[in-house]
Amino acid sequence: MHFGDVVVFDDPITLDNNLHSKPVGRAQGLYLYDKKEVYTAWLGFTFVFNSTGLKGTMNFLGADPIMDKSRDISVVGGTGDFFMTRGIATLMTDAFEGEVYFRLRVDINLYECH
Amino acid sequence: MHFGDVVVFDDPITLDNNLHSKPVGRAQGLYLYDKKEVYTAWLGFTFVFNSTGLKGTMNFLGADPIMDKSRDISVVGGTGDFFMTRGIATLMTDAFEGEVYFRLRVDINLYECH
Amino acid sequence: MHFGDVVVFDDPITLDNNLHSKPVGRAQGLYLYDKKEVYTAWLGFTFVFNSTGLKGTMNFLGADPIMDKSRDISVVGGTGDFFMTRGIATLMTDAFEGEVYFRLRVDINLYECH
Repeated sequence: MHFGDVVVFDDPITLDNNLHSKPVGRAQGLYLYDKKEVYTAWLGFTFVFNSTGLKGTMNFLGADPIMDKSRDISVVGGTGDFFMTRGIATLMTDAFEGEVYFRLRVDINLYECH
Repeated sequence: MHFGDVVVFDDPITLDNNLHSKPVGRAQGLYLYDKKEVYTAWLGFTFVFNSTGLKGTMNFLGADPIMDKSRDISVVGGTGDFFMTRGIATLMTDAFEGEVYFRLRVDINLYECH
Repeated sequence: MHFGDVVVFDDPITLDNNLHSKPVGRAQGLYLYDKKEVYTAWLGFTFVFNSTGLKGTMNFLGADPIMDKSRDISVVGGTGDFFMTRGIATLMTDAFEGEVYFRLRVDINLYECH
């Protein structure tokens, strides 16, 4: 299933699950389909925040077995309001309408390094 | 030599150097050939552990001058049993039978951030 | 503008802004053009230092809105002389002569995790 495809994305980030809410930033990066038997992906991307209340970036990396209900990836760094942050992001597929539209819920726990 | 190629992989991880041992997980991600004169690569990948004793992921990033005997890359994060880990992974080519089969030995040193 | 292109690079690193200075290492990795309306990129790359004074690697990740004067990405790890380092790298386009030649200035602030 699409093994080896590299997909570049640039999607809006909203604070709720409504595509039409005012975005607080963009999610930009890549994912790849990396398994032949089941539908899974590998992700490298950045949240670029550009709202009035929130500026800066958060950088993510990890494997995403997208058929699992929830899966964890790493927050490996941040800039601006997220200066030097690290943490875990839990991805949940909130809506899936084929390849044309799907929506991810991302719960983020940050742990600062002191 | 393959300059610019992006290769997506999904390979078994075993605790010894035998391809036929029961895998404890999968290595999933990408590498790219990024130098024209010599054979070298750039890596972004995840170890996804799914054995009974070991669950979670470890995320890697780094340059891999694959003709060197040993080379170091970064462990930039982890989840599950490897929650928030960081470290250094030393890669050694254990077997190389052309592009059809090669085996990497990966020695990992983890340093937790407190 | 090139949306979705994945570009593999391997460029010299110099300590000043002169392409003809003796390089202290190579910058190796990928960038992708990830936005349709404006010219922006996503970066994953490694500085591989191989001069007499400097050995080791530094790994970078982040979004790069390349039309901004300065933009921050994460240093997510390092090896050798940059063992376990983290930090912020500020990118500034120093010279831009179309797609054939451009030069980036990279100011790096490192923060060690103790």
